[in-house]
Amino acid sequence: MTRTVAFQGESGAYSEIAALNYFSRSIKTLPLPTFPAIFNAVKTGQAAAAVVPIENALAGSVHENYDLLLKYKLPIVGEIILPISHYLLALPGVKIRDIRLVISHPQALQQCADFLNGLQDVRIEPFYDTAGSAKKLVDDQLHDTTAIASREAAEKYGLDILASRIESNHENYTRFLIIQKEPKIPEKGGKTSIVFSFEDAPGALFKSLAVFALRDINLLKIESRPLHGKPFNYYFYLDIEGSINERPAKNALNHLKEIATFLQVLGSYPKSKAK
Amino acid sequence: MTRTVAFQGESGAYSEIAALNYFSRSIKTLPLPTFPAIFNAVKTGQAAAAVVPIENALAGSVHENYDLLLKYKLPIVGEIILPISHYLLALPGVKIRDIRLVISHPQALQQCADFLNGLQDVRIEPFYDTAGSAKKLVDDQLHDTTAIASREAAEKYGLDILASRIESNHENYTRFLIIQKEPKIPEKGGKTSIVFSFEDAPGALFKSLAVFALRDINLLKIESRPLHGKPFNYYFYLDIEGSINERPAKNALNHLKEIATFLQVLGSYPKSKAK
Repeated sequence: MTRTVAFQGESGAYSEIAALNYFSRSIKTLPLPTFPAIFNAVKTGQAAAAVVPIENALAGSVHENYDLLLKYKLPIVGEIILPISHYLLALPGVKIRDIRLVISHPQALQQCADFLNGLQDVRIEPFYDTAGSAKKLVDDQLHDTTAIASREAAEKYGLDILASRIESNHENYTRFLIIQKEPKIPEKGGKTSIVFSFEDAPGALFKSLAVFALRDINLLKIESRPLHGKPFNYYFYLDIEGSINERPAKNALNHLKEIATFLQVLGSYPKSKAK
Repeated sequence: MTRTVAFQGESGAYSEIAALNYFSRSIKTLPLPTFPAIFNAVKTGQAAAAVVPIENALAGSVHENYDLLLKYKLPIVGEIILPISHYLLALPGVKIRDIRLVISHPQALQQCADFLNGLQDVRIEPFYDTAGSAKKLVDDQLHDTTAIASREAAEKYGLDILASRIESNHENYTRFLIIQKEPKIPEKGGKTSIVFSFEDAPGALFKSLAVFALRDINLLKIESRPLHGKPFNYYFYLDIEGSINERPAKNALNHLKEIATFLQVLGSYPKSKAK
């Protein structure tokens, strides 16, 4: 049976490329308009898994998805790091000199600012989605407009590539998480993502991190998000080295329960091979 | 001489209200279109100070401004916490039943989602700015459109208030920072904001926080931002209790220099009285 994997955006989106890379080409991908929609698709069984962008090396974390991981309680079972390259796409036959308008997601536009500054007499307009901006060229048959999107979006919509790898900084990666309904915890190794909060006690954050340091468990990432209803109190999202099936991580989490007033494990999963 | 204080947005923006509350009414406020523009205004002397939103209790941190504090090196000299309430505004005489379109900043629209769901046959469209959406009603004389903005924007543009405090969660606060060209460090008390990074050594984050814990210095906030050019390495932004004029904080920062490869003090300043 072919597995369905949900992603946010239109066909040709970077999230879809991440899904096809992670699962091999045999899956069926399901484009959905919003991040809550892809969490819902996994929750209801409409999709077997979803691919969730969580962090970009230039723009930082996708905070909405941190909030949704907490809300939906769907376990993380894997991650994949994808290099992100942007391409300037247009309808076949259109030349750069014909272009009067560039459309794409605001983040893609910003990442290509140096290239765009070199174009003359061209307006720049934000669009809700990179692959969606490529699709729009075809849907509306725009002969004076160009879109910034993936190479895969060019193939998908039969567009010409006018310029390649136009991002200012080529060290551009996005980390995607794979979520499913059931956890798939490795016996050992990998990483574990958790979220916790505590009453506003002095030193509580330090003590929370000490439970890992005292057991030589490496911290890979920390992220804070506001705790709704309690202004300027935070949830802390932490990635630590190792699986919760291993004794040190188990002990550390038991220790953390003594300090935190709330603790949830978001998943233990193998680390991405790429980087 | 009247001091000029820059803020991002149109007249009537929450940032302008924060400026007037912080400095008293005697200042001259200077509306500018972007966050870099307000940092630039202080740098060039066009404004004596600027008011910078840094954190909202519901939406989280304004990450662009963390990056700009690092880039412009303009010291933080104060902070103010402002309760945020949203109002539904329309041209005089317009009734709720006439409304076909609601415009505002996406964050304000999201914060009023429950109220908006109760309206029938109404389209919702994101706008770049809350006060700007109020101004647009007047500029374009829109009789079938309503804007979500502050009470002050209603006064400013002569609009009627159709509904008050329509945000779903009333525990809605924004913390603003005041930046100037010269630091104004309190002799004692207040808080200090710093940013630092380190080579990817195991335990370095824990050791960095230990320099404060070992001296009983309270951590008030931690925030991580990507370090450009080094994928998945981070700058850490930290708020700690006390002024860098005090011995424990001075010692802690000297200790932190042994661990961090980069350290910058963003400012020592009195804590906001409101909350």
